[in-house]
Amino acid sequence: MDPKYVFDFAEGGRDMADLLGGKGANLAEMARMGLPVPPGFTVTTEACRVYLETGEPPSELAHQISKHLAALERAAGRRLGQVDDPLLVSVRSGARFSMPGMMETILDIGLNDLSVLGLGRTPERERFAWDSYRRLVQMFGSTVMGVDSTWFEDALAGIKKQHHAADDTQVDTSDLIRLVETYKDLILRVTGEEFPQEPAEQLRRAVLAVFTSWNGERARLYRHREHIPHDLGTAVNIQTMVFGNLGPDSGSGVAFTRDPATGRPGIYGDYLPNAQGEDVVAGIRNAVPLQELENLDPGSFGRLRDCMRQLEAHYRDLCDIEFTIERGTLWMLQTRVGKRTSQAAFAIAGQLVDEGVISPQEALGRVDGEGLARLMFPRFDSSGTRDVLARGIPASPGAAVGAVVFDSAEAVRRAADGEKVVLVRQETTPDDLPGMIAAEAVLTSRGGKTSHAAVVARGMGKVCVCGAEELTVDPHERLFSTSSTTVREGTVVSVDGSEGVVFLGAAPLVDSPVMRYFEAGGPPPGQEAQQVVRDVHRLVGQADEARRMEVRANADTPEDAARARRFGAQGIGLCRTEHMFLGDRRPLVEAMILAHDDQEREAALAALLPLQRQDFTGILEAMDGLPVTIRLLDPPLHEFLPDLTELSVRLARLDALGRRPDPHETELLAAVTRMHEENPMLGLRGVRLGLVVPGLVAMQVRAVAEAVVARTRAGGDPRAEIMVPLVDAVEELRLVGEEVARVLQEVSVETGVALDCPVGTMIELPRAALTAGRIAQDAQFFSFGTNDLTQTTWGFSRDDVEAAFFSAYLDKGIFRSSPFETIDREGVGRLVEIAVAEGRAARPGLKIGVCGEHGGDPESVHFFHDAGLDYVSCSPFRVPIARLEAGRAALQATWARAGK
Amino acid sequence: MDPKYVFDFAEGGRDMADLLGGKGANLAEMARMGLPVPPGFTVTTEACRVYLETGEPPSELAHQISKHLAALERAAGRRLGQVDDPLLVSVRSGARFSMPGMMETILDIGLNDLSVLGLGRTPERERFAWDSYRRLVQMFGSTVMGVDSTWFEDALAGIKKQHHAADDTQVDTSDLIRLVETYKDLILRVTGEEFPQEPAEQLRRAVLAVFTSWNGERARLYRHREHIPHDLGTAVNIQTMVFGNLGPDSGSGVAFTRDPATGRPGIYGDYLPNAQGEDVVAGIRNAVPLQELENLDPGSFGRLRDCMRQLEAHYRDLCDIEFTIERGTLWMLQTRVGKRTSQAAFAIAGQLVDEGVISPQEALGRVDGEGLARLMFPRFDSSGTRDVLARGIPASPGAAVGAVVFDSAEAVRRAADGEKVVLVRQETTPDDLPGMIAAEAVLTSRGGKTSHAAVVARGMGKVCVCGAEELTVDPHERLFSTSSTTVREGTVVSVDGSEGVVFLGAAPLVDSPVMRYFEAGGPPPGQEAQQVVRDVHRLVGQADEARRMEVRANADTPEDAARARRFGAQGIGLCRTEHMFLGDRRPLVEAMILAHDDQEREAALAALLPLQRQDFTGILEAMDGLPVTIRLLDPPLHEFLPDLTELSVRLARLDALGRRPDPHETELLAAVTRMHEENPMLGLRGVRLGLVVPGLVAMQVRAVAEAVVARTRAGGDPRAEIMVPLVDAVEELRLVGEEVARVLQEVSVETGVALDCPVGTMIELPRAALTAGRIAQDAQFFSFGTNDLTQTTWGFSRDDVEAAFFSAYLDKGIFRSSPFETIDREGVGRLVEIAVAEGRAARPGLKIGVCGEHGGDPESVHFFHDAGLDYVSCSPFRVPIARLEAGRAALQATWARAGK
Repeated sequence: MDPKYVFDFAEGGRDMADLLGGKGANLAEMARMGLPVPPGFTVTTEACRVYLETGEPPSELAHQISKHLAALERAAGRRLGQVDDPLLVSVRSGARFSMPGMMETILDIGLNDLSVLGLGRTPERERFAWDSYRRLVQMFGSTVMGVDSTWFEDALAGIKKQHHAADDTQVDTSDLIRLVETYKDLILRVTGEEFPQEPAEQLRRAVLAVFTSWNGERARLYRHREHIPHDLGTAVNIQTMVFGNLGPDSGSGVAFTRDPATGRPGIYGDYLPNAQGEDVVAGIRNAVPLQELENLDPGSFGRLRDCMRQLEAHYRDLCDIEFTIERGTLWMLQTRVGKRTSQAAFAIAGQLVDEGVISPQEALGRVDGEGLARLMFPRFDSSGTRDVLARGIPASPGAAVGAVVFDSAEAVRRAADGEKVVLVRQETTPDDLPGMIAAEAVLTSRGGKTSHAAVVARGMGKVCVCGAEELTVDPHERLFSTSSTTVREGTVVSVDGSEGVVFLGAAPLVDSPVMRYFEAGGPPPGQEAQQVVRDVHRLVGQADEARRMEVRANADTPEDAARARRFGAQGIGLCRTEHMFLGDRRPLVEAMILAHDDQEREAALAALLPLQRQDFTGILEAMDGLPVTIRLLDPPLHEFLPDLTELSVRLARLDALGRRPDPHETELLAAVTRMHEENPMLGLRGVRLGLVVPGLVAMQVRAVAEAVVARTRAGGDPRAEIMVPLVDAVEELRLVGEEVARVLQEVSVETGVALDCPVGTMIELPRAALTAGRIAQDAQFFSFGTNDLTQTTWGFSRDDVEAAFFSAYLDKGIFRSSPFETIDREGVGRLVEIAVAEGRAARPGLKIGVCGEHGGDPESVHFFHDAGLDYVSCSPFRVPIARLEAGRAALQATWARAGK
Repeated sequence: MDPKYVFDFAEGGRDMADLLGGKGANLAEMARMGLPVPPGFTVTTEACRVYLETGEPPSELAHQISKHLAALERAAGRRLGQVDDPLLVSVRSGARFSMPGMMETILDIGLNDLSVLGLGRTPERERFAWDSYRRLVQMFGSTVMGVDSTWFEDALAGIKKQHHAADDTQVDTSDLIRLVETYKDLILRVTGEEFPQEPAEQLRRAVLAVFTSWNGERARLYRHREHIPHDLGTAVNIQTMVFGNLGPDSGSGVAFTRDPATGRPGIYGDYLPNAQGEDVVAGIRNAVPLQELENLDPGSFGRLRDCMRQLEAHYRDLCDIEFTIERGTLWMLQTRVGKRTSQAAFAIAGQLVDEGVISPQEALGRVDGEGLARLMFPRFDSSGTRDVLARGIPASPGAAVGAVVFDSAEAVRRAADGEKVVLVRQETTPDDLPGMIAAEAVLTSRGGKTSHAAVVARGMGKVCVCGAEELTVDPHERLFSTSSTTVREGTVVSVDGSEGVVFLGAAPLVDSPVMRYFEAGGPPPGQEAQQVVRDVHRLVGQADEARRMEVRANADTPEDAARARRFGAQGIGLCRTEHMFLGDRRPLVEAMILAHDDQEREAALAALLPLQRQDFTGILEAMDGLPVTIRLLDPPLHEFLPDLTELSVRLARLDALGRRPDPHETELLAAVTRMHEENPMLGLRGVRLGLVVPGLVAMQVRAVAEAVVARTRAGGDPRAEIMVPLVDAVEELRLVGEEVARVLQEVSVETGVALDCPVGTMIELPRAALTAGRIAQDAQFFSFGTNDLTQTTWGFSRDDVEAAFFSAYLDKGIFRSSPFETIDREGVGRLVEIAVAEGRAARPGLKIGVCGEHGGDPESVHFFHDAGLDYVSCSPFRVPIARLEAGRAALQATWARAGK
């Protein structure tokens, strides 16, 4: 049996979106619910895929379409192309994922020289009929037959000029009749073909044109940006035309079952009397608030309200609806679960639980970590009106205010003077890097979420709005302009990277109440708290109940540790000790590195010991009762020395001028030269340092041990864990482990305090993952360092290559997302899975976590849950996000299992 | 049943070396053959392992030893400790792998106050008996009972001084009797214990002392150096003592069934009349050539010759024998397959085939690639006598002559003046690196094959002898001395890194005949050829017949390609194109990199095109009919620009002096600064370059295509393959592959010549290996780049870390060998296996090779055979070695399968 390529609306449903596209599936769903949907049918994405692959539609398709069309005509009692009250249909694309405006739509199929007379059978509809025909010929001629649309526009403009007409409505019927003839001639001349009078032929060709538009340039670009696969294809919906432009008792509108900005329940939307749906979307005329429909047409309003209630109850979520009223009859043209702001997402999820519509667990499926992250940034005060300059893609969240600059050099110069700047470029390149570093925010007129500007700004945590296409950027004149405004260099603007909006002037910033709530340690919010805080509190609490994974934080100071704890961290997964080697301790570290003999080195280490002990004591106090994983020194030692080029240049200048350099500097230069590494990331660092620098491990471990003793004696409950970085082979860990054990025992004997600090390892090199079974013999825990693991698995360093080619890689589809933002499941993830399986096989119950930046990335958190990790550790500010996502991941895994 | 911990010689055999150690297994084998072996038994390595793990010998051991001892006594008709003609035994270590002199030996067990009288029952044996007893007490006291041996020596020295005796032989019997008493008192005073009179107790404790000596410091160090596992343990051989020092009709000797230096058959060895075996080994007195035994004792000589014939026939190889003649009776004390020089190895393998003893395939098991490599180096002329200064460990082969220097600075200074130098250090550290680079050879007095000097010199291909312990190096006085000579800075010495010998003066160098043979294209050697060439020819030919893997070469010029072909390469596995971007082409490359716009870049690329085409044409001509795998540009572009620090310093100097720099240099500095990467190894290189630098791939591919066309038109058979470097994801390969296909088609259309160049990829990043199944969809071949794969899998770069910590890692046992010399099977090898399996699953029959330096390393070649690779590619000079080892690997795999 041939595949079924065409489904009547009555045959489909919302669970068939893969086959029918989102629009088709929801139309079918509404039809099944008995809502007033204009009858029609859907050609499947499968038919489209066959067409795209072979260049031919499936052989059965024409026959299946005719059968469904015949049924549609039978049911309507009208036929396409008939003279008397002809049936007309629309042909619309509808892919699995919404791609608004990216593909073709052809309306009024079925009109021809004959049926146009039937449609215009009453005088008041005559002009409407010819205008519809004129539009069909124009749309069909350009979209299906490939005639350059400007030719049609020129012809129309000529007629308007003749009549001194300001807009299309001033063109009269006889002109329209002439215009149709002109258009048809044009088509014949350009293509050598007549405009097809046969409605079935119109329909056939319109369907193929929609198929073809899947691979249009705009559509491909959009899919790149939105990470939509290119091989899905689009469905095509053929639906009986209804008209909202047949007079004052007709109209079109959009409706939301809740406020998509705040989440408040009610009737929200816009209504445009005597207009087609396209006019509402295009914003050609001013719509009225939907509530006014109650006065204009109470019957239709009541029916619409009923439909909205039915839809929300059925979809159990905010619905976004398009409708048309044709002479007092309501028709539902589209519905889908509506987009909403982050605040609305939390509010709606909470309300639906309160209303008993969804379970608290289900509510977690309605929010996500990125939404929560957006709620934690400061925002521009929403009271008062603001002058919106432009809208673009919200590429990197947050709010920033600064003076507009147009190149990197100016950004750097003004920033050096303490001025806050916003770098505005058509698009950025690696050359703009210094300017991006100097700026508060980056604004571009081109490019999407994966553009260079977006990728690099996210990497730096800078605010970014990109692809603000209304802007014309002129760096030579040092200005940018919109249709209404020109903004010169130095003008202050406000950039909202969370919403993708740019305002003129300095908009006032307000703190995030959600951030205040977490900063206060996330106590149960009181009555006076803002609703959004109560919603967040409830949902994060729900996630805490659901999650299997612990959430820890990466923190190197007592202050960060305390904050992490307030944000809900259940320990410290990564306490880096290298930051403790900087600042005023640098001379001691320098002395250790430059030591001429063991004695000098030991003296330097001995001086560092009490300082390290003090660091650890403070952190253990802040995290009393919770685990604190302390990583032994990781970076190459020359990071603590001056830069080779800078120092060489300084000494060369002195030398050229005949001045004698400081002998210490000369010695420093010798050391820096000797220790210089071509690739420090791949050099003498991590455990390798511990194995070749005598006394370093012992000093650090002693500092930890003495801190534990101090806290124990102070009545605390210190839980230090020692983590060895950059292990490649079990033998490295074994040797360091022996030294750790020796020092712990020494301190224990000296102080009489029992010391039980687990010793574990980072898994951050491919070899460690590949030999995890052996490493687990000597490791009491594993912690994945996914930053380094990503760098070595892919063979690129983030600092060196992100700006150089990540954007190109995202655009070319090599990356779906930056592997430093979201874990690469296929490569890095496979190593994680190998290490978890083989590590636990060697040591059942081995505790395994992750402390790379991926620990705070929503998608990655789900992967880590699936991979069986015990905890994720991330920056303190990402802890609430990780808590939420860890809960969501656990629930999704449960549902996935139940679904099996 | 308890395990059997003791085996009589009659119960063992040569295939039991794991359990009985090498010595024990061969003693048993000789006993089974009916050769005259003094009776005895062996305590197993298993017993030793139990003792080392638990600190106690297995409970059954004592009983088993007594049973075997009783049987021994019964058979001999004599007993340990009896007064009348007592039985004495030796207790000797004997591990699986030879560790000469590293563990303990105790002779004359069974002597006590009573039996010493029995042993000395005739006047002529009295002194001998007491001297033996004195030695036992001394050896037992120090080795078993832990008394510092200098105390014994002091006592002996005191007596000698009393008698003005020059050596031990001048000490008379009564002194020896007194000395025994003194020794026994010494033991009692120091240990509080009597020297045990009970022979069984002596034996029991001697066995445990040998066990313990397995973990002695020297033994551990030796095993580190020789890569012998620490957990094997040693066997202990208890054997009836025989005496070669009972008069002129006694003696001891060593014998070889063929000349271990040249391989010539015959009777080779040394004989020392009236001496124990230990005296021969120690070289205390001058031995005579073994042939003279025929005159001294024709009967024993005849029996020895028979034994030697039997042994060689039995072992089917050169045997190395120790024997003792006790009053005209020949006793065989040890045999093993003897060590030999590389030349001898090839000669013997050939002879044994000629003699019908072994098959030609088996002969391949008797030689190896490293031996062949040594035969390919120039050597010092062996005619004439030379003044041997010292012997050490042959750590990096070759021969070099130069003036002695004692520090890095002096080495660099003299080398800069064109002088050839040999760097002499006690041991080297990373600070000696510049000196090692400047020197012809490195000589150290400390450290083994894994010392810093050895590892780094091998990495650089420098000659190195290390651990020449006779040398005392005094860098302050700028000299080194041996017991007989003092050598001052500037003195010329000759260092033979293949044999581990240092000579005074400039020894004349001679070319390797084997190298000449290969340089001539390896034709069948004529009658006049040296025997070694005929042996090598035969065995390499044998390997060619046996091997499954092809051998290709890495070559970037027509000259290298031609040489590779002469050396037997079956194609080029890696033709790097970056070398073609250097020299006088650098300005063009610079222009390409600095291009301000597409036009400038295209002009630079267009200028490079004919030069590249010419390169490729020459190489394809040299390799006509064989595949040439051309790799697209790999290194980061800034490698073609000046060094950042150098350029910065130069411009800073000019600036400090108020001089105006060349504008080109200023522009260069800006470019170098912009393109500077912290970790160029992990930067914008490989396929990433091809994807972001417009026109680069197209230019290179066009050059290849046009070269193929030129060669085709010239009647040649060019077989170019295009290889994409540093691929991480199939999408990268797909995009480049599309461009390659486009250019090939363009050139094909332009020229009318059909072009069929396979496009494949390097697998040199962990992610490529982990996603090889997907990559294989777009790759027509794989080539493992094991250098980069090792760097990224381990997370270290060879340049940065080899000198910094590899030696420490080898010493600590973290590495068994440098992972850049021999492939790391566990980590990198696992990735190779994954990629082979998943690549071939996705594309059956996928051609897979390797082009890293491991392709010429013997052990790695075996791994690549086992992993199923189709070819290895290595430097032209390593091609014969790879051919030999690929053949050996194939045969070994066949034998291993047959053995199953």
